[in-house]
Amino acid sequence: MSDTPDSAVHTVRTYTEQHRAAFLDDLVEWLRIPSVSAQPEHAPDVRRSAEWLAGKLRETGFPVAEVWETEGAPAVFAEWPAGEDDAPTVLVYGHHDVQPAAREDGWDTDPFEPVIRGNRLHARGAADDKGQVFFHTLGVRAHLALTGRSAPAVNLKLLVEGEEESGSPHFRALVEGHRERLAADAVVVSDTGMWSETTPTVCTGMRGVADCEIELYGPDQDIHSGSFGGAVPNPVTAAARIVAALHDEDERVTIPGFYDGVTELTDAERALIAELPFDESSWLATAKSYGTLGEAGYSTLERVWARPTAEVNGMGGGYQGPGGKTIVPSSAMLKLSFRLVAGQDPYALETAVRDWVAARVPDGIRHKITFGAPTRPCLTPLDHPALQSVVRSMSKAFDGAKIRFTREGGSGPAADLQDVLAAPVLFLGISVPSDGWHAPNEKVELDLLFKGVETVAHLWGDLSGALR
Amino acid sequence: MSDTPDSAVHTVRTYTEQHRAAFLDDLVEWLRIPSVSAQPEHAPDVRRSAEWLAGKLRETGFPVAEVWETEGAPAVFAEWPAGEDDAPTVLVYGHHDVQPAAREDGWDTDPFEPVIRGNRLHARGAADDKGQVFFHTLGVRAHLALTGRSAPAVNLKLLVEGEEESGSPHFRALVEGHRERLAADAVVVSDTGMWSETTPTVCTGMRGVADCEIELYGPDQDIHSGSFGGAVPNPVTAAARIVAALHDEDERVTIPGFYDGVTELTDAERALIAELPFDESSWLATAKSYGTLGEAGYSTLERVWARPTAEVNGMGGGYQGPGGKTIVPSSAMLKLSFRLVAGQDPYALETAVRDWVAARVPDGIRHKITFGAPTRPCLTPLDHPALQSVVRSMSKAFDGAKIRFTREGGSGPAADLQDVLAAPVLFLGISVPSDGWHAPNEKVELDLLFKGVETVAHLWGDLSGALR
Repeated sequence: MSDTPDSAVHTVRTYTEQHRAAFLDDLVEWLRIPSVSAQPEHAPDVRRSAEWLAGKLRETGFPVAEVWETEGAPAVFAEWPAGEDDAPTVLVYGHHDVQPAAREDGWDTDPFEPVIRGNRLHARGAADDKGQVFFHTLGVRAHLALTGRSAPAVNLKLLVEGEEESGSPHFRALVEGHRERLAADAVVVSDTGMWSETTPTVCTGMRGVADCEIELYGPDQDIHSGSFGGAVPNPVTAAARIVAALHDEDERVTIPGFYDGVTELTDAERALIAELPFDESSWLATAKSYGTLGEAGYSTLERVWARPTAEVNGMGGGYQGPGGKTIVPSSAMLKLSFRLVAGQDPYALETAVRDWVAARVPDGIRHKITFGAPTRPCLTPLDHPALQSVVRSMSKAFDGAKIRFTREGGSGPAADLQDVLAAPVLFLGISVPSDGWHAPNEKVELDLLFKGVETVAHLWGDLSGALR
Repeated sequence: MSDTPDSAVHTVRTYTEQHRAAFLDDLVEWLRIPSVSAQPEHAPDVRRSAEWLAGKLRETGFPVAEVWETEGAPAVFAEWPAGEDDAPTVLVYGHHDVQPAAREDGWDTDPFEPVIRGNRLHARGAADDKGQVFFHTLGVRAHLALTGRSAPAVNLKLLVEGEEESGSPHFRALVEGHRERLAADAVVVSDTGMWSETTPTVCTGMRGVADCEIELYGPDQDIHSGSFGGAVPNPVTAAARIVAALHDEDERVTIPGFYDGVTELTDAERALIAELPFDESSWLATAKSYGTLGEAGYSTLERVWARPTAEVNGMGGGYQGPGGKTIVPSSAMLKLSFRLVAGQDPYALETAVRDWVAARVPDGIRHKITFGAPTRPCLTPLDHPALQSVVRSMSKAFDGAKIRFTREGGSGPAADLQDVLAAPVLFLGISVPSDGWHAPNEKVELDLLFKGVETVAHLWGDLSGALR
């Protein structure tokens, strides 16, 4: 064991390489469990996933690894005390549930039969988030190998929830209910990404999200569009008019009060974002999109990192089969989600959306709005000393590369941890934009997965000093 | 046999009642065949339906009953010459295909297992249009019983097509290809309705229809709405904006040129419509709707009978399953149909729609529009002598009731017959608005079905005189 930086890098890398095959075998086994929290028929799989992980964490060496019940899907909690009275405490957050996935959505292979092609592991959850939870297992072992310790240099806690992809409806209650056991000096969230394979970055903030489903009911059944069309309101038309009215011609959201409290970007932050090596055409290729469109006055990165949005995620009504069917449909449905930035209150938004929709539904159409539990936005203080620990540790894993800063357009329940535990949130993620989160053929880059392992191996010792 | 009106009514009614049970047994057998022309898997059923009908028409006495092939589904042609050189020729039009129907759409019973409840026969096609085709079989037999003839008093032809519910894409070619065998002095269309069970009416016009499907493609796959949302165009939003832009705040269609050529209602026609015993709340009950909405400046009846419309029949895109899925969807689809009135050119409309949609699709979204074959609008001349034959014959069947005039909001290929055969089109329909065309639990009123039989029995003799 040595404490010179070069030999530390070498020690960690060697240890990681020695355990690479067994680590991947285990991860593949976990990815085979289709822990889709949004689909009730997969509830047993979400539980199986939690139990599998708790068992694996005990194997890793965590003296405590428990399945925690919620009113929804179970979470996993594990704890490995440092064994020293003055050691700081770090809570790692991730999730073991995954987005829905089906072969016919466009997957080249079964989303729950992981396959390694070249240097990539393809499976639903490979990057979001099982892969990024799992690098902490080999990471803590590599930390022990590096330091010669029998326990981590920090009191290490893991909380891996099972409902993140369903909007974490019971997460806040879970955290509040276990406030004391979860107490930490810092939270490390491993559910985000990096700029690219060649530009390692640390994320400093995430957007929140609020989502709702709007059901619209017109005639009691589909009716003949010749006999009645043109004289009764059509619920699909009503739904479309709501979606079309969401944005003005500058693509700004029109719901009154939507932008209330929004933390605007400073000039310095805009400059920092502008410095990143952003290439719109390659970003578009990653987005598999053919054009950009967004709020006037902001760049693409600003739009996805720092601006709130309203998006329609799904919509349906009337006849969607082959051929035509000349009806006035009886109902329509639309699913909206809103990305939120620091300063926005999701509950105020819910009220605003309900009022705004109600005012736009014509006479003769009945409607119902159902909101999911919101996820708050989160911003990490740039000047926190623990952030420099993350930067230093990543830099070692990435062979001395300069670590830059990003934000994350996606959402996670990090803000609840920040609120309830009164702890700063750090982000340690190794996923890259091409990983295809929520999309067919999701993958994780194996090289980056092991950079995650190495970063963890360096981080616990560094953070142990920074947090004292 | 007698020619006093009262005894003619009695003779026809007695004959009809004697054959009622066998007639219903046959109709039920036909309704069991799920001849859904819009669904390719039912193509063999559409053929079976045609063959069944041709066989039944031969049993009825038609010396000629043939299945006519088209590039799509087969039609049935039958002919029963009067046997007199100077007899006029009448062509009856109907269709043997039906709308899609499935138990889960809200049917109380299997749509293709006919059931008689009280005085109603429930089945897909009971009113639209198998029931109304079928009353011509017993009708012509009752005509022979009434007149003592061995052949009808007119050269009677039937053309029963198999693609009406799919927009009759090959009907015009069929009629053009058989122009000589179809030649007629008048066309009788039995594919429309009456005002109500207690107000018998003759229809004088139908709207046309043009329909299209618009496909919109955004990202190559569903993408994460956190990572990319707010910065790329969403095809569901684009689809919704097209639907929302279809109408202005007066519910007038905004597509440039849409109203070009429209035959406006005269003051006399508006007065005739206003005289009908229209009760909006009972009309709404029939429409199973909770409010009226339509083009400003027109009454409900005017809107459905005499005004062109744009309607969305179906729309879909993104995630429509349970729970949420925070994506920017990769595609969206919408099905539009346009009801047309006399004077509108469906091909000019197609061009206008294509241009209008293309101008509204944002950069980064690709789109495709597919139009079905249009059905032209049709208006019967109110002063044609043959129309009075229909009125007189109906009045006998309805025990001397006053026959009023309506139009039909729906569409049929009657206009093609009018164009190609240069023959006036008469409408003889006994369906009522509550029959639920294109809707779950479609039915026909048995009393009215037999009024149809009786009307036909009186009509051929009357028309034989009127058309000479």
